[in-house]
Amino acid sequence: MLTFSLAQLDFTVGDLPGNVTRMAAAARKAAKDGAQIVVFTELALTGYPPGDLLGEPGFLAHVDAALMKLCDASRVTPNLYWAVGVPTRYGRGRALENSLIVVKNGQIVLQYSKRVLSACGMFDERRYFVPGPDVTACLEIEGTRVGFLIGEDAWNGENKDNSLDPLGQLATKNPGLVIVIHASPSHINMRRERHACITAASRRYGFPVVYVNQIGGQDQLVFDGASFAATPSGVVFEAAHFEETVTTLRLQDGAFQGTAPLAPVCAAGLPLMEFYRRQIVLGISDYTRRCGFTRVVVGSSGGLDSALVLALAVEALGPGNVIAITLPSRFSSIGSVGDSVTLCRNLGIKLFEHPIRDLVATHEQGFNSAFGEPLRGLALENVQARVRGTVLMEYSNQFGALLLTTGNKSEISVGYCTLYGDMNGGLGPIGDLYKTEAIALCRHINETAGRELIPEAIINKPPSAELAPGQKDTDSLPPYPVLDTILKTLIEGERLGAEEQDEVEAAWANLTETKEGTALIARIRRMIWKSEFKRRQIAPALYLRPFGSERQFPIAANYEHLSSSIPAFYGGDE
Amino acid sequence: MLTFSLAQLDFTVGDLPGNVTRMAAAARKAAKDGAQIVVFTELALTGYPPGDLLGEPGFLAHVDAALMKLCDASRVTPNLYWAVGVPTRYGRGRALENSLIVVKNGQIVLQYSKRVLSACGMFDERRYFVPGPDVTACLEIEGTRVGFLIGEDAWNGENKDNSLDPLGQLATKNPGLVIVIHASPSHINMRRERHACITAASRRYGFPVVYVNQIGGQDQLVFDGASFAATPSGVVFEAAHFEETVTTLRLQDGAFQGTAPLAPVCAAGLPLMEFYRRQIVLGISDYTRRCGFTRVVVGSSGGLDSALVLALAVEALGPGNVIAITLPSRFSSIGSVGDSVTLCRNLGIKLFEHPIRDLVATHEQGFNSAFGEPLRGLALENVQARVRGTVLMEYSNQFGALLLTTGNKSEISVGYCTLYGDMNGGLGPIGDLYKTEAIALCRHINETAGRELIPEAIINKPPSAELAPGQKDTDSLPPYPVLDTILKTLIEGERLGAEEQDEVEAAWANLTETKEGTALIARIRRMIWKSEFKRRQIAPALYLRPFGSERQFPIAANYEHLSSSIPAFYGGDE
Repeated sequence: MLTFSLAQLDFTVGDLPGNVTRMAAAARKAAKDGAQIVVFTELALTGYPPGDLLGEPGFLAHVDAALMKLCDASRVTPNLYWAVGVPTRYGRGRALENSLIVVKNGQIVLQYSKRVLSACGMFDERRYFVPGPDVTACLEIEGTRVGFLIGEDAWNGENKDNSLDPLGQLATKNPGLVIVIHASPSHINMRRERHACITAASRRYGFPVVYVNQIGGQDQLVFDGASFAATPSGVVFEAAHFEETVTTLRLQDGAFQGTAPLAPVCAAGLPLMEFYRRQIVLGISDYTRRCGFTRVVVGSSGGLDSALVLALAVEALGPGNVIAITLPSRFSSIGSVGDSVTLCRNLGIKLFEHPIRDLVATHEQGFNSAFGEPLRGLALENVQARVRGTVLMEYSNQFGALLLTTGNKSEISVGYCTLYGDMNGGLGPIGDLYKTEAIALCRHINETAGRELIPEAIINKPPSAELAPGQKDTDSLPPYPVLDTILKTLIEGERLGAEEQDEVEAAWANLTETKEGTALIARIRRMIWKSEFKRRQIAPALYLRPFGSERQFPIAANYEHLSSSIPAFYGGDE
Repeated sequence: MLTFSLAQLDFTVGDLPGNVTRMAAAARKAAKDGAQIVVFTELALTGYPPGDLLGEPGFLAHVDAALMKLCDASRVTPNLYWAVGVPTRYGRGRALENSLIVVKNGQIVLQYSKRVLSACGMFDERRYFVPGPDVTACLEIEGTRVGFLIGEDAWNGENKDNSLDPLGQLATKNPGLVIVIHASPSHINMRRERHACITAASRRYGFPVVYVNQIGGQDQLVFDGASFAATPSGVVFEAAHFEETVTTLRLQDGAFQGTAPLAPVCAAGLPLMEFYRRQIVLGISDYTRRCGFTRVVVGSSGGLDSALVLALAVEALGPGNVIAITLPSRFSSIGSVGDSVTLCRNLGIKLFEHPIRDLVATHEQGFNSAFGEPLRGLALENVQARVRGTVLMEYSNQFGALLLTTGNKSEISVGYCTLYGDMNGGLGPIGDLYKTEAIALCRHINETAGRELIPEAIINKPPSAELAPGQKDTDSLPPYPVLDTILKTLIEGERLGAEEQDEVEAAWANLTETKEGTALIARIRRMIWKSEFKRRQIAPALYLRPFGSERQFPIAANYEHLSSSIPAFYGGDE
């Protein structure tokens, strides 16, 4: 029988001593639970992803020092193996490898380097690492042969477009257990993908697999943990999502057992809105803390987006650490301030009122004097947003509170937002959430609270930027369900999950049946392209979808010839 | 004898019909010059780099249509071969390849796909393309066997860490001429690198090589053209830098001849400051035009950076299309406005004056009323920069002028700039230019003008943000020559060119000899790390160094443990 612990911890990038301390505490718990091996995650020592820190002069010397500390710490649990992700230079020349080492009682007893490096978007591991050599890594522990892999190494059995097959090679060694360490960011389809890949691997080769994933927020990324154990019959254990846990399991005759009976694994996982909520809450709290802040400030417009960000921030940091400021202009409805007051009372947070009428008037006078004509139209609308953004930054700078920006993905995609205005902030918690999803998340928060935490008046009012008299979002944009159908098709495309795809595809088909619908699609496409320059200067937004459906479009390009053609769903027009 | 034309043109990304028209005009000139083949550049049809446009639904249908137009256009020059870069889907499945096709009189007579894809930074061609199949591409033209390669395919002979060797394979076919098409962005060391690689290739295999590179600005990138012809004895012809040209050469018995006698190629190329100047001027003019603007606006502080940006903008767009605004506060020196007046008179541009005293005072009153204490310190300094940024955006929005931001690389690296304030703008022309380089460029501009275009008073005054009484940059920062030594070492590292390296290394050695020097280095390192969040929201800056020495550092990380160690020059401390 093999007893082992899965440690899904929240490491801080760059805080090598702190990460060692965190692992040592988990190892002591594992040893107390009777484990023979404790498993940490990919690049646990440095935190993941370390990015260009890996190339910073002096950094690798710190890695070496921390690794020695880690070896020292392992002497406290002399019978326990520690499996830890670290960058190593033991390979060819001085090139770095993304490695897993196993340490026991001060000694490194095994080293394996990732062979299938992540290559997408911000995980361009090839920027930093060379693939590990063509070897397999096994260790005999208490009569069980344990094999080790890192992240995509274990995907590879399912994904044969790559000539490497570390999983298949490992299988030839007949391991009794395969341990996979990873730092896999959270998004709505990720859990299913992980379960499918790992279960397929277990089924194909007949061995049980344990998959250990880190948790925590790192800039735009949030890692969800949700480590799990799979056998050929499926996933039999799953750790908590978005929480640090150290779980000890036993493996006997190819079957997993808990120290307590294993709870059945829910096939569906967290409901989508609950998933979004927990991810955003963890993303806010880790980003805020790691940037050296304890408090955040949010402009409260009386609208839905800022209400949602305030509610999520309160969950992340507590009501005492969230400050709201309402900044009414002459175009603000009476309801705006009143709704903010109710909201902040419900959330138990401090609300300041800072009217902007005088500031806008002073700008108008100054403009007229300097340039000889009145400020008007979009320029006047924008100045209101920019004055608000400046006041929010005044508060942020003077009182040391991180400004959260409240834009949602629908607005940002079409550029319905003001650079250096409402786009100001250090983090965009809902920047990857479509407006219709933001509405659903507000309702979900109220439901789980069992009361109107976010006033229904806020949820139900027609969305408005309130930058001109009687202005409504629908003056410039289609209703959000229509807009989101178009945006999801154009932006997410084939990355939509199965259920979402069916719904979006049906709505899209409806739209493309009419001339008005196709004209609208063409207009929205143009708006997306034309607002690329705004997104280039956007605050980091938490990724909720695959890499936030990261786009890399040219700004200074000619898009005119393109906007006339209406793409088929999934771009299948070619 | 083979007669051929090198067409280095300024293509617009996405403007496929426009690019075809541009090529057709060049082809007519080539035919008139008696050429048998005209050579265009990498992905000439789409413009380079097309980025995610390649995946945009409908885009490839436009590519197909444009390719048909191009074939049609080639019938006008029935005896001329056109070599053109295009994305193709003729390969395996529907994967894209980065291809070169040769068209003659309406027919595609050859197709070759790039095998060594660019993999660094924003040129992650593997995001879009699969490498071409293992074939060579040759065509017999007028008794000469002409071989074709794309960009890094031709580098590969010198860079054997890759298992592919398209150049060596092509050599086995004994071509009489090798044509390389490329889209190689301009930076200070790039010309030498290109000449070295291509000359080495010619020397190794004994064949003459023609290298054709596009020109033009595309967002942060500027392509310099500087197409050239090399024989085993060196580079014998070089086209203009940063200009569209169609040059016709002849090849006879392995030697190149011009239609006029070939001018001797200057080994040194453009002087560095002239190189910077031409690159920035082209970058400003193409970005401005392609974003749909004819005019730009710049905040004129009376300091050196804004003076430099104004002078460069005037060169790019003409004095009638450049607007300066001076925005004095109560802390502005009397000289600030006066120097701006002199500068703008020298440049022949319109200068508006928009004082910000009232706006700042209104902000102070509003802050005090809302939050119960006076605005002070850094928060008060920042509000001045933000008010200026807002006024500049008012002008930009109301009058449709692109705002240029004037930050230099020294300031930006240490975060000595205000987000949503002086960092506002659509383009940062000198964001990759160190302060000491900005000073040198001002002097160079005056020298070549033969007069004090930028007043000496501006160049010689001690740099100041003028956000507090009597403030000087040196209150917070070391003198710029010292700061730039530290920054170049930490940021550019081994990417420094040879001459620059010698100078920086000597200054660095001096610094690290004293306790104060090492403490200063540690402080500057911390400032770089701590201001990463600002750079994440920065306006696109024109790249003057290799990929702008693109950095990808985590924001929410713990850097404290690292800042104590002083790296050796080039980080060789490990």
